[in-house]
Amino acid sequence: MDLAVLATVARDAVREAADYVRRRLHEPIEAMRKSERGDLVTEVDRTVERMIVERVLRAFPDHGILGEEGVFTRAEAPSPDVPLWVIDPIDGTTNFVHQRINFVLSLAVYQGGEGLVGIVYDPLRDEWFEARRGEGATLNGRPIRVRPNADRLEEALVVTSLFWSRYAERFGLTDKIRELGRRVRGMRLYGAAALELAYVACGRLDGYFSPSLSPWDFAAGALLVKEAGGMVTTVDGKPLSLEGRTTVLAGAPAIYRALRGYLEPSLADKGGERNARQDS
Amino acid sequence: MDLAVLATVARDAVREAADYVRRRLHEPIEAMRKSERGDLVTEVDRTVERMIVERVLRAFPDHGILGEEGVFTRAEAPSPDVPLWVIDPIDGTTNFVHQRINFVLSLAVYQGGEGLVGIVYDPLRDEWFEARRGEGATLNGRPIRVRPNADRLEEALVVTSLFWSRYAERFGLTDKIRELGRRVRGMRLYGAAALELAYVACGRLDGYFSPSLSPWDFAAGALLVKEAGGMVTTVDGKPLSLEGRTTVLAGAPAIYRALRGYLEPSLADKGGERNARQDS
Repeated sequence: MDLAVLATVARDAVREAADYVRRRLHEPIEAMRKSERGDLVTEVDRTVERMIVERVLRAFPDHGILGEEGVFTRAEAPSPDVPLWVIDPIDGTTNFVHQRINFVLSLAVYQGGEGLVGIVYDPLRDEWFEARRGEGATLNGRPIRVRPNADRLEEALVVTSLFWSRYAERFGLTDKIRELGRRVRGMRLYGAAALELAYVACGRLDGYFSPSLSPWDFAAGALLVKEAGGMVTTVDGKPLSLEGRTTVLAGAPAIYRALRGYLEPSLADKGGERNARQDS
Repeated sequence: MDLAVLATVARDAVREAADYVRRRLHEPIEAMRKSERGDLVTEVDRTVERMIVERVLRAFPDHGILGEEGVFTRAEAPSPDVPLWVIDPIDGTTNFVHQRINFVLSLAVYQGGEGLVGIVYDPLRDEWFEARRGEGATLNGRPIRVRPNADRLEEALVVTSLFWSRYAERFGLTDKIRELGRRVRGMRLYGAAALELAYVACGRLDGYFSPSLSPWDFAAGALLVKEAGGMVTTVDGKPLSLEGRTTVLAGAPAIYRALRGYLEPSLADKGGERNARQDS
């Protein structure tokens, strides 16, 4: 499948959906709890996902769809040989509801577990992050890279929710993570994994770790990081899989390695945990 | 002193300085370490402070000046009866250096320890937060309030660097703060105290705690929160003082009270600690 053709359909779908989101921004938005844990969802998330799914299936009726809101499912699973479209209609729904800023639309196309196209779009800053396999990553059309010379934790900006995560406790990491917090130049938390991964890709952040993300949270952002010269794997260095929730470790290469060193005790990856409320 | 006159000078000073910052954004910016702790400062911080000081003193030669970079000091301390201008030329210098976003200019006028005018300006989002004593707070001219119905921690977005702060250890708060992290709807860290306080004022965030801020970090933001209907004090409920570093607790009233409950063991405020690298 020609990457340019996939990218064109992906771009049109995100652009159309973002126009709708912008129109809705100034109207009241009702948020519902998706689970007891308090994950939020709005009618806007569902409408955006539906718009993207419709546009994709109009172009590629046989492609697979994996969306956070699950607005579309087939009677039969699509062939693993066809591209799979991975959609997070609003990444950072809590920010969307509380702030009306700091959320993004995230759309990726994968095939055989490999990212082909990834788009993360922040409609409020009008920042369009895009990557294609083997062709690098861009922000508003200009090439981006992870931060050059991002070598030392002492000069790094890092995102992680490990401080209050049960994952840290389970793996005896609570003291280490506090030490990490004091060692790095800064900790940041934006509450939107796709946005945070895009920021790693363009050098605004240097490292990222989540104990538990869903495929739609990282699909586009992970491709951005990779194509921008960064590293992105599970915490034990395995390729990310779209099969279910997973740990996600990303960063400029030296910072990625330094963070893996910190998280070493958990290298027997037990598959993360349901604790990514802060990240998605 | 007429608030409107002070506000006009303050506005002109911030506007002029922000124009300069915008011009510098696309040029290389050299960052230096201010201290062993790694606080950054750039030539832009110093130039911005100098521009603001010059404009203020042209209008009010006898007023006091308290600036983060200390570009101006008098032989004799100004009378405590005259207004004191409190300047953070770039709040979020680390973000300015690493991201070129998520920093603000902060300028406040105090008299007798009381805030008269406060401005926080985010030049990248073009968001202008302003408050005048007794007249409320605005964002780009429209009135703002802390989030209505911000009653429960379970629905609150909270900012704090307590997770890795030695303050939490000293007061035996490490377990409690982890519990808090799990209880709230979301934790956020933007790495710019004035920005975070402005976000509390407009309801994008609901609570804020720092174990140690300098006067320039909170002067404008605290007035914003107060004039937007929020609470802002030291952790033990005392009025904030511009005399030195201090704890700062702010929020929508119910969230402020809930956070004070969490931080209760530290109510014998020992004056915070030198650990605000993440907040300023």
